[in-house]
Amino acid sequence: MRPAGETKCVGVIDTTFSRVDMGSVAETVLRDLLPEYRVLRYTVPGIKDIPGAARRLIDMGCEGLITLGWVGPAEVDKLSYLAMSVGLVTLSVLTGKVIVDVTVHEDEASDPRELKEIAVNRARAHAENLAKLLKGGLDALRPLAGQGIRQGRPSVGPL
Amino acid sequence: MRPAGETKCVGVIDTTFSRVDMGSVAETVLRDLLPEYRVLRYTVPGIKDIPGAARRLIDMGCEGLITLGWVGPAEVDKLSYLAMSVGLVTLSVLTGKVIVDVTVHEDEASDPRELKEIAVNRARAHAENLAKLLKGGLDALRPLAGQGIRQGRPSVGPL
Amino acid sequence: MRPAGETKCVGVIDTTFSRVDMGSVAETVLRDLLPEYRVLRYTVPGIKDIPGAARRLIDMGCEGLITLGWVGPAEVDKLSYLAMSVGLVTLSVLTGKVIVDVTVHEDEASDPRELKEIAVNRARAHAENLAKLLKGGLDALRPLAGQGIRQGRPSVGPL
Amino acid sequence: MRPAGETKCVGVIDTTFSRVDMGSVAETVLRDLLPEYRVLRYTVPGIKDIPGAARRLIDMGCEGLITLGWVGPAEVDKLSYLAMSVGLVTLSVLTGKVIVDVTVHEDEASDPRELKEIAVNRARAHAENLAKLLKGGLDALRPLAGQGIRQGRPSVGPL
Amino acid sequence: MRPAGETKCVGVIDTTFSRVDMGSVAETVLRDLLPEYRVLRYTVPGIKDIPGAARRLIDMGCEGLITLGWVGPAEVDKLSYLAMSVGLVTLSVLTGKVIVDVTVHEDEASDPRELKEIAVNRARAHAENLAKLLKGGLDALRPLAGQGIRQGRPSVGPL
Repeated sequence: MRPAGETKCVGVIDTTFSRVDMGSVAETVLRDLLPEYRVLRYTVPGIKDIPGAARRLIDMGCEGLITLGWVGPAEVDKLSYLAMSVGLVTLSVLTGKVIVDVTVHEDEASDPRELKEIAVNRARAHAENLAKLLKGGLDALRPLAGQGIRQGRPSVGPL
Repeated sequence: MRPAGETKCVGVIDTTFSRVDMGSVAETVLRDLLPEYRVLRYTVPGIKDIPGAARRLIDMGCEGLITLGWVGPAEVDKLSYLAMSVGLVTLSVLTGKVIVDVTVHEDEASDPRELKEIAVNRARAHAENLAKLLKGGLDALRPLAGQGIRQGRPSVGPL
Repeated sequence: MRPAGETKCVGVIDTTFSRVDMGSVAETVLRDLLPEYRVLRYTVPGIKDIPGAARRLIDMGCEGLITLGWVGPAEVDKLSYLAMSVGLVTLSVLTGKVIVDVTVHEDEASDPRELKEIAVNRARAHAENLAKLLKGGLDALRPLAGQGIRQGRPSVGPL
Repeated sequence: MRPAGETKCVGVIDTTFSRVDMGSVAETVLRDLLPEYRVLRYTVPGIKDIPGAARRLIDMGCEGLITLGWVGPAEVDKLSYLAMSVGLVTLSVLTGKVIVDVTVHEDEASDPRELKEIAVNRARAHAENLAKLLKGGLDALRPLAGQGIRQGRPSVGPL
Repeated sequence: MRPAGETKCVGVIDTTFSRVDMGSVAETVLRDLLPEYRVLRYTVPGIKDIPGAARRLIDMGCEGLITLGWVGPAEVDKLSYLAMSVGLVTLSVLTGKVIVDVTVHEDEASDPRELKEIAVNRARAHAENLAKLLKGGLDALRPLAGQGIRQGRPSVGPL
């Protein structure tokens, strides 16, 4: 048995701003698909808090992260989305860690049930992607290259 | 008694541009909820001065920061908001410190009283968030994950 | 014969989101034009996953990369395009590696056959550019300076 | 008397693109308010040259800088404004130096005399801010927190 | 005579996307004004390739660079312009090198002859600026501060 400090670790970051508990969806998938990893869950207020939280989880030893952001419909929300995205991309460039940056935008659907379904499906599908990327290396998603895959909505397929 | 240099420290950054003294609201909350921390207050002219001030407070030993920006209604203000947000996200990615980046946008409400109320409530709610994040670690906000929490306005709840 | 660890390496990054398998097009070109290089292929979910994957391939020894992104038509897709671009530019600034960042935008053409043709041609042309830049150094593309060259569509020529 | 190399230094960066000599205004204020500092003046072509110049002045020992940008009215000017702002914010995050980033936008006023007056007043007011921040530390601007202070135009006051 | 490795070096980066050979214009100016410098010319496909090329030229010893970008008229081109600008500004902030970032936007003029004239004049004027900045230090452009200087079009003068 390896000491706790050497257990592999994967992180789930979500927000209190979100209107769907996507973090629990991702957590369940990752515990199922990555039984040899510790799964760390970190809930922060909103999307601009995610990059700093991601840094802290990486400093705690996580090799991969899924971040689950909920983006409001106003112009300022779009700018915050951009800042968050730049932050996560910068973190991945600096560390090389696998960071799957997932967002649901409140204006993606007007029907609350549809929006919730998108959120749940997207969190699940991308948690599966994270598990594949961590376990399968470069070849994990190769069979799906160029296949028009979508998460949260039906895939559109290749042209 | 620990020497002064070892006291934990938390920072509040606000601006002279702001039309509401959000810094004093946050300062009061943090002194109340984090009695074992020194609270450093740093007032700068406007939002683009905030990231540099944040760096200086971190260099002075702060483990967490709340920044309180007031964003004007013009297009240039939105671009400045984006630059400030990218700066703070970059700082959190480089240092891993807890930086709660709060802003009030002058076009959020047309009624001055409503705008002031939003500013005061948002500063208070996010100062409480900062205290929880510093003391509670990863689990501090977990019970509110996906609950549609808002600061400054009523929460909208989960879908 | 040099040991495997010293073989030169070039990387191809593409996505499952893409509706055309541009990665295979680029891979074929690079294996043909750079027989002395190992060609590493890495498929990720979407464009915001590309900068982190690029960092990992550079850490595995790649001297050059071609990244093949597919950008949706919505506003959020454009912002994601910007975040990805900033990430790749930052990576190239930090490492000096040759990163040819190729994208096809779903709203470039309304006819699916035309869009597919653009994607295939652009992937091929830029894979050729990458090979030239890696082998020819500073002078590789000098004869085409200011010639209004386009990839995926016909060149427009100089004024 | 301390050797020249140890004299404190503050920098003024302005542009040839600007239609008002804001640099001289700021220089006069800083020489008056900071007699113990060397004042370095650095004129560059346009706003995108400012962040690199700022880095060079910091490398020459400056503890604080005021940058005076003039922003044209076209969309590309706004994007250049954003790039410059991100650059200066990044520099302040990396170095912790006090960088007061001042801009005048050519579309702020249609009357040339009014625009010139805004530029002169803003340069003066922010040079005073820089002097206060360098000499007064964290508390320098505290009495004005949340007071709706404007530079170049009349202050709007608190709500 | 100093060894080749110690010769001062200045770089010119241009693109095959450009419709005017601005690189040759800048090269001629720099060879004339900076006879003691080696002039390195580096042609890359498009504007997003410029920041990485700039990093490579700096790594080869260049003290200054002029980059000559041609920006298309579509929204995606504007976003690419922003990414390139952020990349170059970041590079100048990290290295302190003099990087004169020049662009011509295809929608600046509808007449091809006028557009070509803008491009040639702007490349020449900014190559002269680069030479002045490298040789004249902080004071090189001081006499033109606030004079409303334009490159490629007639200067507009001070207010």
